[in-house]
Amino acid sequence: MTSENDSAPEEKPDDLARHATKMAKKKAARDKIMAGKSGEKGLIIVHTGSGKGKSSSGFGMILRCIAHEMPCAVVQFIKGAWDTGERRLLTTHFGDLCQFYAMGEGFTWETQDRERDVAAAKAGWEKAKELIRNPEIRMVLLDEINIALRYDYLDRDEVLAFLRDEKPEMTHVVLTGRNAAPELIELADLVTEMGQIKHPFRSGIKGQAGVEF
Amino acid sequence: MTSENDSAPEEKPDDLARHATKMAKKKAARDKIMAGKSGEKGLIIVHTGSGKGKSSSGFGMILRCIAHEMPCAVVQFIKGAWDTGERRLLTTHFGDLCQFYAMGEGFTWETQDRERDVAAAKAGWEKAKELIRNPEIRMVLLDEINIALRYDYLDRDEVLAFLRDEKPEMTHVVLTGRNAAPELIELADLVTEMGQIKHPFRSGIKGQAGVEF
Repeated sequence: MTSENDSAPEEKPDDLARHATKMAKKKAARDKIMAGKSGEKGLIIVHTGSGKGKSSSGFGMILRCIAHEMPCAVVQFIKGAWDTGERRLLTTHFGDLCQFYAMGEGFTWETQDRERDVAAAKAGWEKAKELIRNPEIRMVLLDEINIALRYDYLDRDEVLAFLRDEKPEMTHVVLTGRNAAPELIELADLVTEMGQIKHPFRSGIKGQAGVEF
Repeated sequence: MTSENDSAPEEKPDDLARHATKMAKKKAARDKIMAGKSGEKGLIIVHTGSGKGKSSSGFGMILRCIAHEMPCAVVQFIKGAWDTGERRLLTTHFGDLCQFYAMGEGFTWETQDRERDVAAAKAGWEKAKELIRNPEIRMVLLDEINIALRYDYLDRDEVLAFLRDEKPEMTHVVLTGRNAAPELIELADLVTEMGQIKHPFRSGIKGQAGVEF
């Protein structure tokens, strides 16, 4: 709404006027919608689907928290071979604001040892509960917990009951990993499915620094 | 493959043995797939769809680059009112590795001034080309450029031709925003569609620090 509207509306070509009118309507509609959204609460957030971006956008939210100086924490349930970038960045630069725990022993097909996987997942969940119960921690990212749930390394009902009944009201909990349980999606406030449209692995390109790890 | 296999395989229950066998097969299949992926190249990466996580996972990739000390850059084409966390974090902590340019003037329905939007988008694109042409910069995130393309603030053919013909081979370019052009999806190496399954705005919850900004 700059110069044209303030000083010389008559000089504005028709298409610009139409654009301004259309956008003004859009803004009014949007402002009305947003005005109804006064609530704040800690959200249960799920990133699932077979595409990329589930963990990296969880990590992006953790870094938004850090930018706002909100204490936060990450528990990695299934530690891949290559996800070292995030850990290094968080522990090197932001250890005062963000706690980081890598509990998994590698993707489960790397270990081939169910008992060890279960023990690691259970230890991760105990740590997760401790972090979530601490009301000073504003966001807890449970990275790849959906895989641990999918393989029954954790008791799904217990996890759901804890999130429903014991999560402090203002704490955000982010759960990532493909194949999120329908019951978790039902409980969650914000669910995004990352769908794979195209992936360079199919063209013989390997995982690369910055993109995959 | 810890204690059971080393010392007492005969004591392992059937289900654990089955799990180990199944996972060993999965690992062999996966290793075979990954062994074929020796290539490295700069990728054209698109995050689109109506769900959350398009920008935050782009931001997450930028931070992976920073963790690997890979110089990188962000150009924000449509600067929302609330995406200040990323900028603050990047400029405060990582200004030596990551350049950050916020070119947009707010979402277009906030400005209602097409000429100003077009000028801002064009300035952003000039900066983007300069950054992409610099081979020392390993990743350039063009945040919300799909919106600028969708509104014809930029010439789509020019953008596509530049990415195809002038992008240095090893540079990753990440383009985010809903409604990615089919021609861009065709050109891209890695495309993820973030689908909205559930959104708390529908329950009267407003955008919150750490989650949306």
